[in-house]
Amino acid sequence: MKVKTVLHVLSVLMLIISLFIFLSALVALYYREFSSVFAFLKTLLIVVPLSLLVYFMTWKSKNGVLGTREGFLLVSSSWITASLAGALPFTFDHEIPGYTDAFFETMSGFTTTGASILTDIEGLSHGMLFWRSMTHWLGGMGIVVLTVALLPLLGIGGTQLLRAEAPGPSLDKITPKITQNAKILWLIYVGFTFVEIVLLMFGGMSLFDASTHTFGTMATGGFSTRAASVGAFDSAFIHIVITVFMVLAGMNFNLYYKILSGNFRGFFRDTEMKVYISIFLVVTLLISINLLGTYGSFGKSLQYAGFQAASILTTTGYATADYSLWPAFSQNALFFLMFVGGCSGSTGGGLKVIRIVTLFKLAIHEMKQMIYPSGVFRLRMNGIVMKKDIVYPIAGFFFLYFLLLLAVTLSVSSGGYSIITSFSTALATLGNIGPGFGKIGPAFNYSFFPGYIKWILSVAMMLGRLEIYTVLILITPKFWRP
Amino acid sequence: MKVKTVLHVLSVLMLIISLFIFLSALVALYYREFSSVFAFLKTLLIVVPLSLLVYFMTWKSKNGVLGTREGFLLVSSSWITASLAGALPFTFDHEIPGYTDAFFETMSGFTTTGASILTDIEGLSHGMLFWRSMTHWLGGMGIVVLTVALLPLLGIGGTQLLRAEAPGPSLDKITPKITQNAKILWLIYVGFTFVEIVLLMFGGMSLFDASTHTFGTMATGGFSTRAASVGAFDSAFIHIVITVFMVLAGMNFNLYYKILSGNFRGFFRDTEMKVYISIFLVVTLLISINLLGTYGSFGKSLQYAGFQAASILTTTGYATADYSLWPAFSQNALFFLMFVGGCSGSTGGGLKVIRIVTLFKLAIHEMKQMIYPSGVFRLRMNGIVMKKDIVYPIAGFFFLYFLLLLAVTLSVSSGGYSIITSFSTALATLGNIGPGFGKIGPAFNYSFFPGYIKWILSVAMMLGRLEIYTVLILITPKFWRP
Repeated sequence: MKVKTVLHVLSVLMLIISLFIFLSALVALYYREFSSVFAFLKTLLIVVPLSLLVYFMTWKSKNGVLGTREGFLLVSSSWITASLAGALPFTFDHEIPGYTDAFFETMSGFTTTGASILTDIEGLSHGMLFWRSMTHWLGGMGIVVLTVALLPLLGIGGTQLLRAEAPGPSLDKITPKITQNAKILWLIYVGFTFVEIVLLMFGGMSLFDASTHTFGTMATGGFSTRAASVGAFDSAFIHIVITVFMVLAGMNFNLYYKILSGNFRGFFRDTEMKVYISIFLVVTLLISINLLGTYGSFGKSLQYAGFQAASILTTTGYATADYSLWPAFSQNALFFLMFVGGCSGSTGGGLKVIRIVTLFKLAIHEMKQMIYPSGVFRLRMNGIVMKKDIVYPIAGFFFLYFLLLLAVTLSVSSGGYSIITSFSTALATLGNIGPGFGKIGPAFNYSFFPGYIKWILSVAMMLGRLEIYTVLILITPKFWRP
Repeated sequence: MKVKTVLHVLSVLMLIISLFIFLSALVALYYREFSSVFAFLKTLLIVVPLSLLVYFMTWKSKNGVLGTREGFLLVSSSWITASLAGALPFTFDHEIPGYTDAFFETMSGFTTTGASILTDIEGLSHGMLFWRSMTHWLGGMGIVVLTVALLPLLGIGGTQLLRAEAPGPSLDKITPKITQNAKILWLIYVGFTFVEIVLLMFGGMSLFDASTHTFGTMATGGFSTRAASVGAFDSAFIHIVITVFMVLAGMNFNLYYKILSGNFRGFFRDTEMKVYISIFLVVTLLISINLLGTYGSFGKSLQYAGFQAASILTTTGYATADYSLWPAFSQNALFFLMFVGGCSGSTGGGLKVIRIVTLFKLAIHEMKQMIYPSGVFRLRMNGIVMKKDIVYPIAGFFFLYFLLLLAVTLSVSSGGYSIITSFSTALATLGNIGPGFGKIGPAFNYSFFPGYIKWILSVAMMLGRLEIYTVLILITPKFWRP
């Protein structure tokens, strides 16, 4: 294990994050929030020298080659280090009193979950709200993907890295070169971000609100600057723009590269994308019909149904309505979506559509096999034959997801919470969604949980964001054996 | 497809069931419940001549060999035919007014679910209560297993039959001959039934109560003769006897054959059994500690925790306490057990322990593979290597189980029921448990659901009992292709 090389990359990562903390300090300065400015600077005074110290102490290992194990270690430790440091400004500014709460909020940000312990969001300074949304944006596309794009500059190559980092099992690669890959994904991400900010400002949002909400959308995060979430902006245009961009952010970013390079056929033939869009449209339609009595017109129903469906399916967590007041069927339909999640290679969390499609195909495959016991059938996705090495990890993941879901449910219930609260809390954190049902419905927050449950949920958010295996692997003895 | 041969076996099966309907008529006669006696005889007047007609009309096909497809068709149609006919006495006697309700109750009996639409259980005649519990006992070990034991007498051999019928994936076979197998399982089942009846009578129950509750226990069914379920019998001895026999009924019956033939090592080394017992003991202990405040003494807590844990884990559904009034953690622990179920080759339902063990091993296997990408690892269970042909159907089953769970949840919620009611109704019927949470808690029943939901739940119970694939396969076009 080349721990020093991992530390070297981590130090670079923390220096990059420091840049964004500095940017947040500038936002605070613009709004003349001096207490926040000092909190950011205090954080930088700790993080920057420490990062530089590690950077130079591990200088000799900078040319070390990152293997699989180093990749796994780097991914998990990136999220932990970023959250540990990213929580400091909130604590220094006393905007979030306890460090447990600040860490929970920051881990929720970097994992693009959007679960918040804030009881008075509007009470936070602009600087802090900006930094809070920035953790989404940074976490969204993967801090490590950014780092991967920078790796060549550092002279470090890592071939197995994206496998550990890329959200979800991806069947094809954009380009053979991983660093090139990361750069293209990053550029697409920045491009979408820019377009959404412009559109939201066109819809009447300030630059500040447009930026923060765009960060939350593109990362499928869900942190808002308002207690009423996106519902605070009473504009159908804004609701629709955010709905569309949530759906876009929940799609495989490789597909956008395909479109950019003129491969429209590759885009429209993608099974995962088609299933994802179909689920979204069918569930939206069903909820819209169910909501006719609530909103009067079909257009209004569609607007609210579409927003909430997109928000839950993509695991964003924004809200324009308190769905816990909706009719039972609509609530159950959203509950159903909580089990799906975004596409592979997107910023969305959850089980991911590609896994559901794979296992559905597997189930059909098995039925064929039962009817024709001696027949030979193949599992295919987008024309590619999926063998054991693709099916096994997906089946294992699906199982681990439900095992952890129930384990987290039991842990949460030890605090005395009902099944619906415990179960949906587990689902909302492991699936990186944010809001759920019961005591963590869209009109509530996570502040009431005792400290130990907040730490368990922080781990759950990280497990969900980093595709479970990546984190669990670190606690196996085999991993640390030379 | 040799439909005539299937019909021939079905007619024999219905004649066997007629014998048990006649036995119920005798019970009704003993209690001088003449209206019930007539209802049973009226049913026999329809079923027996019809069965004899089919029997002789298909006489020529009696020597036909049952293949895989015929096996699948036979299994599903057995449960449907048995429930269609078994519901008649309830309707004729007006003890259950509508046929929908009567069918639901009977399907719930034959699938050993134990979900009831009865609002006044004590209002039923002894004869009807006996027949109701008898459907459990018959369904429990599988009407078809009985039929398999009789197949040689009919001159019909079927090699693929047990594969479709045996509950859960079984790794080894008792004897090469399937009919011999079925006979041994049947004898063990009868033996346990006899012992439990004697023990319950020793505990103070009448022969009637002892028999009906034994039928419900051995089948992991859950129908009681009292509205308060087993809680109506205020005897620690009775509670403990039923707890032990529920746990025994949830274990693989092949293991008892191993013990009978002196193979104690085979018994004690069985992974599934060890995991099953461990889950039961650990959860019982956790609930007992959580219930200390409710019941005062640890002994009392253990008695109630053990009963409820065994009842839910084995998917029986008996109750000695209204667990919906227990502290949140205990409720969540039972909710967790609802996802487990009994062992393969038992009368229990649910996901089954062997599937959970297999997928757990798969997840560990995948982590090893990630750490050593070029390593070759094998999945083993009780020393046997599990290849793709064992892992794939299990992974597919696990997925289908959750897919159906959510589909049934959505269907139920269309009636306007909350997530906890809809979800636990789906779990309680698909897992063949019976009681759940919310409006179908242990103190309630299924009577309030509208008719269409009762039919959907009847299908869910059948899907769960017949291991999903067996039923789903019948609706694929490929199955019916020559």
